[in-house]
Amino acid sequence: MKENQIPYKTYLTEAELPTAWYDLRADMPNKPAPMLDPGTGKPLTAEQLSGIFCRELVEQELNSDRAYFPIPEEIRDFYKMYRPSPLVRAYCLEKVLDTPAHIYYKFEGNNTSGSHKLNSAIAQAYYAKHQGLKGVTTETGAGQWGTALSMACGYLGLDCKVFMVKVSYEQKPFRREVMRTYGASVTPSPSTETEVGRRILAEYPGTTGSLGCAISEAVEAAVTTPGYRYVLGSVLNQVLLHQSVIGLEAQAAFDKLGVKPDLIIGCAGGGSNLGGLIAPFMGRKLRGEEDYRFLAVEPASCPSFTRGRFAYDFCDTGRICPLAKMYTLGSSFIPSPNHAGGLRFHGMSPILSQLYADGLLEARAVEQTEVFRAAELFARCEGILPAPESSHAIRAAIDEALACKETGKELNILFGLSGTGYFDLTAYQQFHDGQMHDSIPTDEELARSFATLPKVPGLDE
Amino acid sequence: MKENQIPYKTYLTEAELPTAWYDLRADMPNKPAPMLDPGTGKPLTAEQLSGIFCRELVEQELNSDRAYFPIPEEIRDFYKMYRPSPLVRAYCLEKVLDTPAHIYYKFEGNNTSGSHKLNSAIAQAYYAKHQGLKGVTTETGAGQWGTALSMACGYLGLDCKVFMVKVSYEQKPFRREVMRTYGASVTPSPSTETEVGRRILAEYPGTTGSLGCAISEAVEAAVTTPGYRYVLGSVLNQVLLHQSVIGLEAQAAFDKLGVKPDLIIGCAGGGSNLGGLIAPFMGRKLRGEEDYRFLAVEPASCPSFTRGRFAYDFCDTGRICPLAKMYTLGSSFIPSPNHAGGLRFHGMSPILSQLYADGLLEARAVEQTEVFRAAELFARCEGILPAPESSHAIRAAIDEALACKETGKELNILFGLSGTGYFDLTAYQQFHDGQMHDSIPTDEELARSFATLPKVPGLDE
Repeated sequence: MKENQIPYKTYLTEAELPTAWYDLRADMPNKPAPMLDPGTGKPLTAEQLSGIFCRELVEQELNSDRAYFPIPEEIRDFYKMYRPSPLVRAYCLEKVLDTPAHIYYKFEGNNTSGSHKLNSAIAQAYYAKHQGLKGVTTETGAGQWGTALSMACGYLGLDCKVFMVKVSYEQKPFRREVMRTYGASVTPSPSTETEVGRRILAEYPGTTGSLGCAISEAVEAAVTTPGYRYVLGSVLNQVLLHQSVIGLEAQAAFDKLGVKPDLIIGCAGGGSNLGGLIAPFMGRKLRGEEDYRFLAVEPASCPSFTRGRFAYDFCDTGRICPLAKMYTLGSSFIPSPNHAGGLRFHGMSPILSQLYADGLLEARAVEQTEVFRAAELFARCEGILPAPESSHAIRAAIDEALACKETGKELNILFGLSGTGYFDLTAYQQFHDGQMHDSIPTDEELARSFATLPKVPGLDE
Repeated sequence: MKENQIPYKTYLTEAELPTAWYDLRADMPNKPAPMLDPGTGKPLTAEQLSGIFCRELVEQELNSDRAYFPIPEEIRDFYKMYRPSPLVRAYCLEKVLDTPAHIYYKFEGNNTSGSHKLNSAIAQAYYAKHQGLKGVTTETGAGQWGTALSMACGYLGLDCKVFMVKVSYEQKPFRREVMRTYGASVTPSPSTETEVGRRILAEYPGTTGSLGCAISEAVEAAVTTPGYRYVLGSVLNQVLLHQSVIGLEAQAAFDKLGVKPDLIIGCAGGGSNLGGLIAPFMGRKLRGEEDYRFLAVEPASCPSFTRGRFAYDFCDTGRICPLAKMYTLGSSFIPSPNHAGGLRFHGMSPILSQLYADGLLEARAVEQTEVFRAAELFARCEGILPAPESSHAIRAAIDEALACKETGKELNILFGLSGTGYFDLTAYQQFHDGQMHDSIPTDEELARSFATLPKVPGLDE
């Protein structure tokens, strides 16, 4: 397609929607390291994992060779409620930046959860339902995942219990109300409802919570309640698998347009949006079919890739979860309460961590006042008020497009606009009122949390 | 297209987007009555109106014979940021209702203003900009119109001053923050910034405000500030003209699908969404090309059509605006503060009023607890948390679909889903907590506000 014929928005038809998820692990030269039992240091078996996760999800979690998993019809029907998501050419942003770069974004915010999280929520709820379970538990940070899971469970008639990081629970009262609309119960974390919650409250009175801590509570609630399993919105291999629908749609749309993105940018907290967006493109790169640059953008206040260690660590603060090999700041790391929105997990997807370790993925940390400046500029010219999380990717995309003004390169930039900021207005207000500042952990703070990295039996002993 | 091939969502391509707005007045057998000067009782001239409105908008306001107005290219480019909006087949809702009816909705909420209001906001801001004006003033009730105008002005670099009905300003603090993101200033109304505001505050201390009162303030601010004009998000003929883009897109999509809607439903406050949605369909009906039923749904707490009088009345509480002939509850009518969301205007679009008087449009009033029941059901099965306003149309669409279970009719129902409820969570919370009740004005209350209907010189004397 000629450059001037590229529409503002490209939607696939329903017939063109992906019918199978793509598992990037099938094409990775170095597979991500397996999850370990913290007691024995041995890889977790399917049997061990099935106490926490549904059976089908365990199979997906442990896969390493299978490239495609068919998407069940019921999930594809649900996807049709809010998918395909548009691939947008950011003509207005390009004009304001006066850049020779061509900027595209894949917009995942056109649903009530406000983000891409719904792609995996419906998959995980579906498998729970088909295993005959009564309900699921989970944690949520900024609230997007909890809302997504509430929607999926409401649709399928499953119980849904959400532990919400306390600082977000207080900053985002309306998120709770949306989850309630979809029939979920929401508890601020740490809570007194679980043993691990009570322990953390005793150790850190007045804590504003963390994603790692909420995970501990949700896992405990799942394994101690018959008929329940735990579900997680990011980090896990299965989640990246489900989120591949983002990249598959984007790739199909680019192929239709006859355009090749040169640089693919995503924000990274646990890695679900970034991992899903890049998966099929990275697959082509790994198979030697095409070349791309990939860039992960993370908050300077929670810099897992750029300042973390590639090591085995607990996925939760309460240290009751399995060990995963990933870039981590240490499971005791809690970002400053001043940090807005999600992207507050101490670790990172093992798949993305392996890619980063292998030099296949770049990473950059950005400060939040700069992120909100980019968010406001984007909102004014593209008409979408972006989520703080997604605005990390916007920041980097704008910076790269501005760099093209120097080089004159007509770079094709694709970034993931993972969601909207309609429930993040408290953070926008702080930004407008000049009350937002950057809070970057010191080397000493990081050293203290690195000191809590676990010794792995057989590896570190 | 065969019934089972109809997709969940139908998007027109950008090449299929309307290039001209359609003015229903061209096909109306009885034209809406002209606006009158309250002092003389004579129709307002273009010259008189141009003190309030931009020149091009005056021409559109006074039109009666011209069927099409080309949409300027800059506006069409802006439309491409968030249009085409999808025509959605509500398969999930149909399944839950177990109805033989086929339900479609035209979803206008996929933009940060959260509603259809942006369609007219960009048009009005564009004409102000091209007349060389410095800024515009307006009022907003639930905040959708104010947000939309802020977005349009932010995009074009125009000043934007919004008077926001006090009860909404307090119930929706985040709406203010969105408008701020787009660079607007927001004042709760009634305020002490205008003469009319001070007069209303003196007369009704502690009033929670009304749209009619905010209009008075915005008009006064416009006519007393050089380089400013007033813009309005509903009621006016020009607004219905711009909003015809909704109906034109919907009609083109139905024509593509080979489906004819039998019943077209919209919520009605001032009439902008309903008027825009039905315009081209009503045009076909009036030209004898096709037949449809049209249904306006209004709140029982502000029942302009179903309990109002068809008479000349002021468009504002402060009685400084021109007189319009419309269904009205009297310009002193203020709905109960318990009434959630918009649809709180005392009058109604003169175009829709004439159609209703001529028996071409039906109307129904619904109570708000029933509206929120419909909203919650819709959110759970269709994945979109609807605006309270739009949920009036959902309520009626569900009731009509349920009636089809009795008759067995495979009715094609189209309703306007004018927006999302992401900023209306306070109302949802009241609903969930059982604190929402219906507040229907008594006959005595209405008699008191009817008593304030103006005498028109030459007509009533």
